[in-house]
Amino acid sequence: MPELQVVLVNPLYEGNVGSVARVMKNFGHTRLALVDPCPLRNEARAMASHAQDVLENARRVTLDEVLAESAVVVATTGEVARSVCSPTRMPYFEPRELREMVADVEGTVSVLFGRENSGLLNEELARAGIICTIPTSPVYPILNLSHAVGIVCYELAHLQRGEYALASPFEMESLYAHLDRFLDRVDHPPHKRAITLLLARRVLSRAMPTIREASTIHGLLRRTEQLLERSIPADEDDANGLDGTVPRGIE
Amino acid sequence: MPELQVVLVNPLYEGNVGSVARVMKNFGHTRLALVDPCPLRNEARAMASHAQDVLENARRVTLDEVLAESAVVVATTGEVARSVCSPTRMPYFEPRELREMVADVEGTVSVLFGRENSGLLNEELARAGIICTIPTSPVYPILNLSHAVGIVCYELAHLQRGEYALASPFEMESLYAHLDRFLDRVDHPPHKRAITLLLARRVLSRAMPTIREASTIHGLLRRTEQLLERSIPADEDDANGLDGTVPRGIE
Repeated sequence: MPELQVVLVNPLYEGNVGSVARVMKNFGHTRLALVDPCPLRNEARAMASHAQDVLENARRVTLDEVLAESAVVVATTGEVARSVCSPTRMPYFEPRELREMVADVEGTVSVLFGRENSGLLNEELARAGIICTIPTSPVYPILNLSHAVGIVCYELAHLQRGEYALASPFEMESLYAHLDRFLDRVDHPPHKRAITLLLARRVLSRAMPTIREASTIHGLLRRTEQLLERSIPADEDDANGLDGTVPRGIE
Repeated sequence: MPELQVVLVNPLYEGNVGSVARVMKNFGHTRLALVDPCPLRNEARAMASHAQDVLENARRVTLDEVLAESAVVVATTGEVARSVCSPTRMPYFEPRELREMVADVEGTVSVLFGRENSGLLNEELARAGIICTIPTSPVYPILNLSHAVGIVCYELAHLQRGEYALASPFEMESLYAHLDRFLDRVDHPPHKRAITLLLARRVLSRAMPTIREASTIHGLLRRTEQLLERSIPADEDDANGLDGTVPRGIE
């Protein structure tokens, strides 16, 4: 699994460097390297918020050093006109493609981000093996530096959604069976039964309920059945029919 | 195709509202709605940069109005502990799952983002159909508001990477055939030929060269062949052999 290193080349605004440190840490990345950065003072620290450690541990490096220590070097650029087909900027890949491309890399993947006003120079771009461009609107393609870093950090994070347990196939079948018994109880017409059960199966499968959600639906059916027992006697051949005549207030 | 509406519920810092407007416009979204926002003055305008239109057109709304006008309402929350399994916050989905879930929705998909300090209230969460959580590091899970909005806007953007033409299968076969002739020319041993050509095919296929890149490789082979013609006469049966003896300086 690769380790991401964010490399800011000549960042001009210290607040952006602080914001970059914060969003890196939000996605579990800590390696920040700075090539010829602006002075970092109070505003950088303020924007880094609880990522002071990332900011303080940021290394001052040269591009040569970054190349020497990286398994893969990626350069980021803004969108270019389709007519531009210079090998300096083409072909390029989206962050989600990058995620796939570096998935099996062992070692450091360094991603270079350029100056806020002019990006990376052509000679800097030429040193990277892969060009990455975040797809943006042609109406306003200029992303704030920390937003660009944030999206790359998000795509290259190896964070899983917290787990929650979905109802198992067994639990879902038990729910459909309960629904079938419930339809009996409310005198649902037999010739419509199959299609209604199929429809319920489709809706509930698609919703992918958690164990708790499935259990709550069971509970609602059960509660309704119990009330029906008390108010309307069941058929004589219903196993639960004996309790059906007990008035509600007496139990 | 759904239209995204970003809804900020009670945002506390005007700078964040401006940054949100900017990153929305970067990804081609323009519908911003504000529920009980802080006053928006110079800092909001400064951070919006070239998205003044998105900021100025932001509507002041109530949550009731948002619900009435939306096909789907999504609420965003920070990561919760795994033990928490309240139906208010579970099950939840990542932005990339959300992208799939709303892909076929016609109408407005409103995504609610809560206060910078405390997020959305439980009663606000309860009004949304879908809960969305951006996976973050447990070490520092609190994203800046505009970073969170930026990632959702990125995932829900319908922006394609600019196109560039890859070399066609026909062009690639022509390149492999050229390479085969070139190996002849440099007396590559016949018993190693098949494996070397296979290896070249594997490397070049994987690199997915553009038309220009394939053409440059052709050109390099051709240039080398021409120099070889001039310095080393080809075999007698080589069709190009007649030019092989012309010394370089005379041509």
